[in-house]
Amino acid sequence: MLYLVHMIVDIPASLPAEEAARIKAEEKSYSQDLQRSGKWPHLWRVVGEYANYSVFDVESNEELHNVLSALPLFPYMQITVTPLATHPSAI
Amino acid sequence: MLYLVHMIVDIPASLPAEEAARIKAEEKSYSQDLQRSGKWPHLWRVVGEYANYSVFDVESNEELHNVLSALPLFPYMQITVTPLATHPSAI
Amino acid sequence: MLYLVHMIVDIPASLPAEEAARIKAEEKSYSQDLQRSGKWPHLWRVVGEYANYSVFDVESNEELHNVLSALPLFPYMQITVTPLATHPSAI
Amino acid sequence: MLYLVHMIVDIPASLPAEEAARIKAEEKSYSQDLQRSGKWPHLWRVVGEYANYSVFDVESNEELHNVLSALPLFPYMQITVTPLATHPSAI
Amino acid sequence: MLYLVHMIVDIPASLPAEEAARIKAEEKSYSQDLQRSGKWPHLWRVVGEYANYSVFDVESNEELHNVLSALPLFPYMQITVTPLATHPSAI
Amino acid sequence: MLYLVHMIVDIPASLPAEEAARIKAEEKSYSQDLQRSGKWPHLWRVVGEYANYSVFDVESNEELHNVLSALPLFPYMQITVTPLATHPSAI
Amino acid sequence: MLYLVHMIVDIPASLPAEEAARIKAEEKSYSQDLQRSGKWPHLWRVVGEYANYSVFDVESNEELHNVLSALPLFPYMQITVTPLATHPSAI
Amino acid sequence: MLYLVHMIVDIPASLPAEEAARIKAEEKSYSQDLQRSGKWPHLWRVVGEYANYSVFDVESNEELHNVLSALPLFPYMQITVTPLATHPSAI
Amino acid sequence: MLYLVHMIVDIPASLPAEEAARIKAEEKSYSQDLQRSGKWPHLWRVVGEYANYSVFDVESNEELHNVLSALPLFPYMQITVTPLATHPSAI
Amino acid sequence: MLYLVHMIVDIPASLPAEEAARIKAEEKSYSQDLQRSGKWPHLWRVVGEYANYSVFDVESNEELHNVLSALPLFPYMQITVTPLATHPSAI
Repeated sequence: MLYLVHMIVDIPASLPAEEAARIKAEEKSYSQDLQRSGKWPHLWRVVGEYANYSVFDVESNEELHNVLSALPLFPYMQITVTPLATHPSAI
Repeated sequence: MLYLVHMIVDIPASLPAEEAARIKAEEKSYSQDLQRSGKWPHLWRVVGEYANYSVFDVESNEELHNVLSALPLFPYMQITVTPLATHPSAI
Repeated sequence: MLYLVHMIVDIPASLPAEEAARIKAEEKSYSQDLQRSGKWPHLWRVVGEYANYSVFDVESNEELHNVLSALPLFPYMQITVTPLATHPSAI
Repeated sequence: MLYLVHMIVDIPASLPAEEAARIKAEEKSYSQDLQRSGKWPHLWRVVGEYANYSVFDVESNEELHNVLSALPLFPYMQITVTPLATHPSAI
Repeated sequence: MLYLVHMIVDIPASLPAEEAARIKAEEKSYSQDLQRSGKWPHLWRVVGEYANYSVFDVESNEELHNVLSALPLFPYMQITVTPLATHPSAI
Repeated sequence: MLYLVHMIVDIPASLPAEEAARIKAEEKSYSQDLQRSGKWPHLWRVVGEYANYSVFDVESNEELHNVLSALPLFPYMQITVTPLATHPSAI
Repeated sequence: MLYLVHMIVDIPASLPAEEAARIKAEEKSYSQDLQRSGKWPHLWRVVGEYANYSVFDVESNEELHNVLSALPLFPYMQITVTPLATHPSAI
Repeated sequence: MLYLVHMIVDIPASLPAEEAARIKAEEKSYSQDLQRSGKWPHLWRVVGEYANYSVFDVESNEELHNVLSALPLFPYMQITVTPLATHPSAI
Repeated sequence: MLYLVHMIVDIPASLPAEEAARIKAEEKSYSQDLQRSGKWPHLWRVVGEYANYSVFDVESNEELHNVLSALPLFPYMQITVTPLATHPSAI
Repeated sequence: MLYLVHMIVDIPASLPAEEAARIKAEEKSYSQDLQRSGKWPHLWRVVGEYANYSVFDVESNEELHNVLSALPLFPYMQITVTPLATHPSAI
């Protein structure tokens, strides 16, 4: 089941640089594990922004929320979820 | 080169039903040709809306505009284009 | 799997009154069948508006889109879908 | 009398972690008491967000404001209230 | 129980002038009956707009929706309802 | 001369609690003096929000600005003013 | 007493050209009478738009609404009113 | 003196096709005359939209409004004007 | 050449009170010099807000930017500029 | 390949003045190198704002993101990218 997910990252200036670096490293590792598992099939950078558009392929709303709320950057992101379905013209 | 494209369809009530049907059939055929060519790799329906999110893979802004403005439904759609780039965490 | 769905109805003045009445009657019947089936557990009127908030309980994004796009009033509604998950404080 | 309530939580980074944890625990307890009393019949997490949609069943606008403004997280939430009524197609 | 109600009137040009005049006369009569009954204690024109802000005093959300949806101009208005409560500084 | 005034209060977390308490007490006293004088005939809490809708009855735009900008909470509020006039259907 | 007024004109295509011309001529005449009377001291075109920003100098909210709602183009305009006061730095 | 101008074209379906074609031909000719004169140095299509971003180089606000309001498509466009100045880092 | 300028002032709580007072005094002096020179012919307070609407009369976009960006409060203001032209009905 | 880029600068008050000055100097140097290379052909100040509109001429979405995300002020800017194509009326 597919969802388009838009994530805008906004790390507050008050977060110490080392902590920010650690969180970003964890985010990268967590994200790559999910990509390898097939649950996060697409991850694209939005040109000119600290943001991404992603496609997730999970079993349920529940699983998607668990995956997203466990993102190390979750407290610093504004996330919007759009449920997707098969398009009648898709081949 | 990838772009996320959001299309909202709004066919005016004044368009005769047969003409609308003809345009939609042309749209489907045109869309499927582009999907087969590899230029329109993803086409998803937005749940609950007469709208889609698509990913296009073309050579340039110019080619994307040519492809989109030739859509049979182009006069009846509101289109938003977001240029995409490689995400540093993408595998 | 639960979704909150917001529907705003806007029937164009150009639709003949009898056709509007026929569509509304079909909508009511279709809606009540879904309510009886358990797929549409909540349907509330928004006070002062020709709009509703509903909760749907379906198997997938796909099923939700099929249910919504088959609504007799679908061509005359603006629909917004919000996927829901279990709240950690819910009993 | 039913109301749909949308709550977005935004705890400032300046709030010490222990105080945040204490407030969240109080919120959970307070919320569960209200759920048990029947005044807060539905509480759902919005997928991908630190937000919820809730349905409250109270006697009056006055009672709803008292219940909401006593939420331990009230100072850190953006709340929107939508009054609901019986839908003519509801069974 | 008090509610602030904002009504914006937008009568389509396609409505025949006599019918518009008849509906407005019915609206005036209906509104004045409700004012006399105490259910519509305040009705103000917004300066420069075909709109009003009103305060309603009714028993419930249900009654408010019944009153508003029976307004002769209801099909031609955009209505927004804000539930009100006692302010702690009000005398 | 009547005006509808919407006030949203947002006291920054950096303001010491005692100072906030002192300002709120001054606000209450100032507000009640104005209510007694007849210049602030209505003051309602917006359900679920730290906000109010008020009606002011003053001689001029000038007087209204003087009254509002002297509110002890003025530096912490977002205020919107809507001038009101007699509605032709008001009794 | 001064007000800034923003007017956006949108004449529907369905209005016959001669009637539109007649209304615009009446608008011009009405506007120039008010300018001569001192009640409409400033009238500026917004560059690139069929819109204007104006300043009105009238006795009351009531008078402003009477003046604006009598504009021959009133049914075809979207009007926003901002009450103005003396600025403490104005000379 | 430079201005960035954003033009969105929206030709109503009720305009006969031949008249639309004639207006577009006049628009092209008018636009190319202004481009040759140096007053319209840049004209770009927005990808995926019936819209353009343009740069105009004129003597004054007055001249810009005269140029824009004389566009054959002016009645069918939504135009936004942004005045530009020299950037301190521009070479 | 005239421009309507909207300025919203938002001085951060972190700015020391004496520095804020000094900047405001400089702003007043700078503003009054420009008013005396004829470049800032109108300056009005927006009722209920820490904001103003102003009219500037300068030679060019360039001069307007120089005047505005030299305002002592410039770093603490959100400014919107609307170019104005002669209205055909203005006397 | 052309893109219109809108950049709004918002440097937090917490950034030490010398560091801000150093970043701005680096930004100027970086920007002028790109202008000399032909990749940043236009850079204009938006009148009255700490913002610019720019045109970039690069090979791909990828290159544009690399150029923008390397701006020394990138962490302090809100950037919006609009892909451009040839306009059929452009000479």
